[in-house]
Amino acid sequence: MTTISTKPYLLRAIWEWCVDQGFTPYLATLVDENTRVPPGYARDGQIVLNLSPDATGQLQMANDFISFQGRFGGVAHSLVIPVANVIAIYARENGQGMAFEPELEVPEEEAEATEGESGEIVQDISDATAQARGERSAEPQPPARPPRGSHLKVIK
Amino acid sequence: MTTISTKPYLLRAIWEWCVDQGFTPYLATLVDENTRVPPGYARDGQIVLNLSPDATGQLQMANDFISFQGRFGGVAHSLVIPVANVIAIYARENGQGMAFEPELEVPEEEAEATEGESGEIVQDISDATAQARGERSAEPQPPARPPRGSHLKVIK
Repeated sequence: MTTISTKPYLLRAIWEWCVDQGFTPYLATLVDENTRVPPGYARDGQIVLNLSPDATGQLQMANDFISFQGRFGGVAHSLVIPVANVIAIYARENGQGMAFEPELEVPEEEAEATEGESGEIVQDISDATAQARGERSAEPQPPARPPRGSHLKVIK
Repeated sequence: MTTISTKPYLLRAIWEWCVDQGFTPYLATLVDENTRVPPGYARDGQIVLNLSPDATGQLQMANDFISFQGRFGGVAHSLVIPVANVIAIYARENGQGMAFEPELEVPEEEAEATEGESGEIVQDISDATAQARGERSAEPQPPARPPRGSHLKVIK
Protein backbone atom coordinates (compact mmCIF):
# COMPACT_ATOMS: atom_id res chain seq x y z
CA MET A 1 0.00 0.00 0.00
CA THR A 2 1.31 3.42 -0.91
CA THR A 3 1.21 5.76 2.03
CA ILE A 4 -1.01 8.76 1.40
CA SER A 5 0.45 12.06 2.53
CA THR A 6 -1.07 14.12 5.32
CA LYS A 7 -1.90 16.88 2.81
CA PRO A 8 -5.48 15.91 1.90
CA TYR A 9 -6.26 15.43 5.60
CA LEU A 10 -4.89 18.89 6.40
CA LEU A 11 -6.83 20.47 3.52
CA ARG A 12 -10.07 18.99 4.83
CA ALA A 13 -9.19 20.08 8.37
CA ILE A 14 -8.62 23.72 7.40
CA TRP A 15 -11.70 23.71 5.19
CA GLU A 16 -13.80 22.41 8.09
CA TRP A 17 -12.24 24.94 10.46
CA CYS A 18 -13.09 27.81 8.07
CA VAL A 19 -16.69 26.72 7.65
CA ASP A 20 -17.20 26.12 11.39
CA GLN A 21 -15.84 29.59 12.16
CA GLY A 22 -18.00 31.25 9.54
CA PHE A 23 -14.99 32.03 7.33
CA THR A 24 -14.72 31.62 3.57
CA PRO A 25 -12.29 28.84 2.59
CA TYR A 26 -10.06 29.89 -0.29
CA LEU A 27 -7.99 27.35 -2.17
CA ALA A 28 -4.92 28.45 -4.13
CA THR A 29 -3.70 26.00 -6.73
CA LEU A 30 -1.25 25.70 -9.58
CA VAL A 31 -2.98 25.41 -12.94
CA ASP A 32 -1.56 22.85 -15.39
CA GLU A 33 -2.67 20.06 -17.69
CA ASN A 34 -3.96 18.08 -14.69
CA THR A 35 -6.36 20.72 -13.44
CA ARG A 36 -9.79 21.36 -14.88
CA VAL A 37 -10.69 25.01 -14.27
CA PRO A 38 -12.61 27.50 -16.39
CA PRO A 39 -10.27 29.05 -18.96
CA GLY A 40 -9.48 32.69 -18.50
CA TYR A 41 -9.42 32.84 -14.73
CA ALA A 42 -5.89 31.70 -13.99
CA ARG A 43 -3.17 34.29 -13.45
CA ASP A 44 0.51 33.45 -13.61
CA GLY A 45 -0.37 29.77 -13.73
CA GLN A 46 -2.35 29.95 -10.50
CA ILE A 47 -5.96 30.33 -9.48
CA VAL A 48 -7.65 31.06 -6.16
CA LEU A 49 -11.02 29.41 -5.70
CA ASN A 50 -13.82 30.01 -3.23
CA LEU A 51 -14.62 26.60 -1.68
CA SER A 52 -17.41 27.79 0.61
CA PRO A 53 -20.58 25.67 0.70
CA ASP A 54 -22.48 28.65 -0.76
CA ALA A 55 -20.19 28.93 -3.77
CA THR A 56 -19.80 25.22 -4.57
CA GLY A 57 -21.96 22.25 -5.41
CA GLN A 58 -21.08 18.58 -4.96
CA LEU A 59 -17.80 19.48 -3.31
CA GLN A 60 -15.60 16.43 -2.79
CA MET A 61 -12.25 16.70 -1.07
CA ALA A 62 -10.77 13.26 -1.66
CA ASN A 63 -7.20 12.13 -1.08
CA ASP A 64 -6.16 12.60 -4.72
CA PHE A 65 -8.54 15.20 -6.12
CA ILE A 66 -10.78 18.06 -5.10
CA SER A 67 -13.81 18.39 -7.34
CA PHE A 68 -16.85 20.64 -7.31
CA GLN A 69 -19.35 22.57 -9.39
CA GLY A 70 -18.92 26.32 -9.44
CA ARG A 71 -20.30 29.29 -11.30
CA PHE A 72 -17.95 31.57 -13.18
CA GLY A 73 -19.44 34.62 -14.86
CA GLY A 74 -22.86 33.05 -14.37
CA VAL A 75 -21.86 29.84 -16.14
CA ALA A 76 -21.70 26.49 -14.30
CA HIS A 77 -18.40 24.64 -14.52
CA SER A 78 -17.08 21.32 -13.24
CA LEU A 79 -13.71 21.82 -11.61
CA VAL A 80 -11.11 19.19 -10.76
CA ILE A 81 -7.96 20.01 -8.80
CA PRO A 82 -5.34 17.37 -8.02
CA VAL A 83 -4.31 17.62 -4.36
CA ALA A 84 -0.70 17.73 -5.58
CA ASN A 85 -1.42 21.09 -7.27
CA VAL A 86 -2.79 22.80 -4.17
CA ILE A 87 -0.46 25.42 -2.73
CA ALA A 88 -2.63 26.90 0.03
CA ILE A 89 -5.94 26.82 1.83
CA TYR A 90 -6.90 29.74 4.04
CA ALA A 91 -9.72 31.90 5.36
CA ARG A 92 -10.45 34.90 3.15
CA GLU A 93 -11.33 36.97 6.21
CA ASN A 94 -8.03 36.74 8.07
CA GLY A 95 -5.61 34.84 5.85
CA GLN A 96 -5.19 32.07 8.44
CA GLY A 97 -4.60 28.63 7.05
CA MET A 98 -1.85 26.53 5.62
CA ALA A 99 0.49 26.75 2.66
CA PHE A 100 2.20 23.85 0.92
CA GLU A 101 5.33 23.55 -1.13
CA PRO A 102 4.38 22.76 -4.74
CA GLU A 103 4.81 19.03 -5.31
CA LEU A 104 5.17 19.38 -9.06
CA GLU A 105 8.72 19.05 -10.29
CA VAL A 106 8.29 20.61 -13.69
CA PRO A 107 11.14 22.68 -15.15
CA GLU A 108 10.09 26.28 -15.71
CA GLU A 109 10.37 26.15 -19.51
CA GLU A 110 8.34 23.01 -19.75
CA ALA A 111 5.74 24.46 -17.40
CA GLU A 112 5.30 27.45 -19.68
CA ALA A 113 4.96 25.23 -22.72
CA THR A 114 2.39 23.07 -20.99
CA GLU A 115 0.38 26.09 -20.05
CA GLY A 116 0.28 27.16 -23.66
CA GLU A 117 -0.74 23.73 -24.90
CA SER A 118 -3.66 23.48 -22.53
CA GLY A 119 -5.10 26.63 -24.09
CA GLU A 120 -5.12 28.47 -20.79
CA ILE A 121 -5.83 32.11 -21.36
CA VAL A 122 -4.31 34.18 -18.64
CA GLN A 123 -6.63 37.11 -18.44
CA ASP A 124 -6.54 40.09 -16.19
CA ILE A 125 -9.74 40.55 -14.30
CA SER A 126 -10.00 43.99 -12.79
CA ASP A 127 -11.48 44.56 -9.36
CA ALA A 128 -14.21 46.67 -10.94
CA THR A 129 -15.31 43.85 -13.23
CA ALA A 130 -15.45 41.39 -10.38
CA GLN A 131 -17.39 43.73 -8.16
CA ALA A 132 -19.80 44.50 -10.96
CA ARG A 133 -20.71 40.82 -11.24
CA GLY A 134 -21.87 40.91 -7.65
CA GLU A 135 -22.97 37.31 -7.57
CA ARG A 136 -21.83 34.65 -5.15
CA SER A 137 -19.56 32.40 -7.12
CA ALA A 138 -16.47 30.26 -6.91
CA GLU A 139 -14.58 32.83 -8.91
CA PRO A 140 -11.29 34.03 -7.61
CA GLN A 141 -11.46 37.39 -5.94
CA PRO A 142 -8.95 39.41 -7.92
CA PRO A 143 -6.26 40.37 -7.58
CA ALA A 144 -5.49 36.69 -7.12
CA ARG A 145 -2.38 37.32 -5.12
CA PRO A 146 -0.95 34.59 -2.93
CA PRO A 147 -2.52 34.63 0.52
CA ARG A 148 -0.97 36.79 3.19
CA GLY A 149 2.11 34.89 4.19
CA SER A 150 2.28 35.97 7.80
CA HIS A 151 -0.60 33.75 8.85
CA LEU A 152 0.23 30.75 6.73
CA LYS A 153 2.37 27.87 7.78
CA VAL A 154 4.30 26.42 4.88
CA ILE A 155 4.25 22.64 5.00
CA LYS A 156 7.25 21.14 3.27
CA MET B 1 -17.87 34.33 19.22
CA THR B 2 -14.30 33.47 20.09
CA THR B 3 -12.49 32.03 17.11
CA ILE B 4 -11.26 28.51 17.75
CA SER B 5 -7.74 27.85 16.58
CA THR B 6 -6.95 25.41 13.79
CA LYS B 7 -5.08 23.19 16.28
CA PRO B 8 -7.89 20.79 17.27
CA TYR B 9 -8.78 20.38 13.60
CA LEU B 10 -5.18 19.55 12.73
CA LEU B 11 -4.92 17.09 15.64
CA ARG B 12 -7.99 15.24 14.39
CA ALA B 13 -6.65 15.31 10.83
CA ILE B 14 -3.31 13.74 11.75
CA TRP B 15 -5.01 11.20 14.02
CA GLU B 16 -7.30 10.18 11.16
CA TRP B 17 -4.38 10.02 8.74
CA CYS B 18 -2.45 7.73 11.12
CA VAL B 19 -5.37 5.37 11.61
CA ASP B 20 -6.23 5.26 7.88
CA GLN B 21 -2.61 4.42 7.06
CA GLY B 22 -2.39 1.73 9.72
CA PHE B 23 -0.01 3.79 11.84
CA THR B 24 -0.15 4.29 15.61
CA PRO B 25 -1.06 7.87 16.57
CA TYR B 26 1.12 9.15 19.41
CA LEU B 27 0.21 12.30 21.28
CA ALA B 28 2.88 14.23 23.17
CA THR B 29 1.59 16.64 25.77
CA LEU B 30 2.77 18.86 28.59
CA VAL B 31 1.61 17.62 31.98
CA ASP B 32 0.35 20.25 34.43
CA GLU B 33 -2.54 20.91 36.78
CA ASN B 34 -4.96 20.94 33.83
CA THR B 35 -4.15 17.46 32.57
CA ARG B 36 -5.52 14.28 34.06
CA VAL B 37 -3.02 11.48 33.42
CA PRO B 38 -2.02 8.50 35.57
CA PRO B 39 0.63 9.58 38.08
CA GLY B 40 4.07 8.17 37.56
CA TYR B 41 4.15 8.11 33.79
CA ALA B 42 5.18 11.68 33.01
CA ARG B 43 8.83 12.47 32.40
CA ASP B 44 10.24 15.97 32.52
CA GLY B 45 6.70 17.32 32.69
CA GLN B 46 5.67 15.56 29.49
CA ILE B 47 3.93 12.35 28.51
CA VAL B 48 3.54 10.51 25.22
CA LEU B 49 0.26 8.65 24.84
CA ASN B 50 -0.86 5.99 22.41
CA LEU B 51 -4.15 7.23 20.91
CA SER B 52 -4.78 4.23 18.64
CA PRO B 53 -8.31 2.82 18.63
CA ASP B 54 -6.92 -0.45 20.09
CA ALA B 55 -5.34 1.33 23.05
CA THR B 56 -8.15 3.74 23.88
CA GLY B 57 -11.81 3.64 24.78
CA GLN B 58 -14.35 6.43 24.37
CA LEU B 59 -11.79 8.63 22.64
CA GLN B 60 -13.08 12.16 22.14
CA MET B 61 -11.02 14.77 20.34
CA ALA B 62 -13.00 17.93 20.95
CA ASN B 63 -11.93 21.51 20.31
CA ASP B 64 -10.89 22.13 23.94
CA PHE B 65 -10.06 18.72 25.35
CA ILE B 66 -8.98 15.24 24.33
CA SER B 67 -10.37 12.56 26.63
CA PHE B 68 -10.23 8.78 26.63
CA GLN B 69 -10.01 5.65 28.73
CA GLY B 70 -6.66 3.91 28.73
CA ARG B 71 -4.95 1.09 30.57
CA PHE B 72 -1.70 1.77 32.39
CA GLY B 73 0.02 -1.18 34.05
CA GLY B 74 -3.20 -3.11 33.66
CA VAL B 75 -5.29 -0.48 35.44
CA ALA B 76 -7.99 1.54 33.65
CA HIS B 77 -7.67 5.30 33.83
CA SER B 78 -9.69 8.25 32.55
CA LEU B 79 -7.41 10.75 30.85
CA VAL B 80 -8.14 14.37 29.99
CA ILE B 81 -5.71 16.50 27.98
CA PRO B 82 -6.43 20.15 27.17
CA VAL B 83 -5.72 20.84 23.49
CA ALA B 84 -3.57 23.76 24.66
CA ASN B 85 -1.17 21.30 26.33
CA VAL B 86 -0.58 19.18 23.24
CA ILE B 87 2.88 19.61 21.74
CA ALA B 88 2.83 16.97 19.00
CA ILE B 89 0.86 14.26 17.25
CA TYR B 90 2.69 11.78 15.02
CA ALA B 91 2.86 8.25 13.74
CA ARG B 92 4.97 5.97 15.93
CA GLU B 93 6.14 4.05 12.87
CA ASN B 94 7.79 6.90 10.96
CA GLY B 95 7.61 10.01 13.15
CA GLN B 96 5.52 11.87 10.58
CA GLY B 97 3.02 14.31 11.97
CA MET B 98 2.86 17.78 13.39
CA ALA B 99 4.42 19.62 16.31
CA PHE B 100 3.01 22.68 18.04
CA GLU B 101 4.57 25.45 20.06
CA PRO B 102 3.47 25.12 23.68
CA GLU B 103 0.63 27.58 24.31
CA LEU B 104 1.22 27.71 28.03
CA GLU B 105 3.04 30.80 29.18
CA VAL B 106 4.21 29.58 32.55
CA PRO B 107 7.60 30.72 33.86
CA GLU B 108 9.95 27.79 34.35
CA GLU B 109 10.13 28.11 38.13
CA GLU B 110 6.39 28.25 38.49
CA ALA B 111 6.02 25.27 36.18
CA GLU B 112 8.27 23.22 38.40
CA ALA B 113 6.32 24.24 41.50
CA THR B 114 3.03 23.35 39.85
CA GLU B 115 4.36 19.98 38.90
CA GLY B 116 5.28 19.32 42.52
CA GLU B 117 1.88 20.44 43.80
CA SER B 118 -0.02 18.14 41.50
CA GLY B 119 1.77 15.20 43.06
CA GLU B 120 3.19 14.12 39.74
CA ILE B 121 5.81 11.47 40.28
CA VAL B 122 8.30 11.59 37.49
CA GLN B 123 9.44 8.03 37.27
CA ASP B 124 11.94 6.44 34.98
CA ILE B 125 10.50 3.51 33.14
CA SER B 126 13.16 1.37 31.54
CA ASP B 127 12.71 -0.17 28.12
CA ALA B 128 12.99 -3.60 29.70
CA THR B 129 10.09 -2.95 32.06
CA ALA B 130 7.90 -1.69 29.26
CA GLN B 131 8.68 -4.63 27.03
CA ALA B 132 8.04 -7.03 29.89
CA ARG B 133 4.50 -5.72 30.24
CA GLY B 134 3.78 -6.76 26.69
CA GLU B 135 0.16 -5.66 26.76
CA ARG B 136 -1.50 -3.24 24.38
CA SER B 137 -2.04 -0.06 26.35
CA ALA B 138 -2.08 3.69 26.11
CA GLU B 139 1.15 3.82 28.06
CA PRO B 140 3.97 5.86 26.67
CA GLN B 141 6.64 3.82 24.96
CA PRO B 142 9.73 4.79 26.90
CA PRO B 143 12.05 6.49 26.51
CA ALA B 144 9.44 9.20 26.09
CA ARG B 145 11.69 11.40 24.01
CA PRO B 146 10.21 14.09 21.82
CA PRO B 147 9.28 12.72 18.43
CA ARG B 148 11.86 12.76 15.68
CA GLY B 149 12.04 16.36 14.66
CA SER B 150 12.95 15.89 11.05
CA HIS B 151 9.49 14.74 10.08
CA LEU B 152 7.51 17.15 12.20
CA LYS B 153 6.29 20.53 11.16
CA VAL B 154 6.24 22.98 14.03
CA ILE B 155 3.07 25.04 13.96
CA LYS B 156 3.54 28.40 15.65
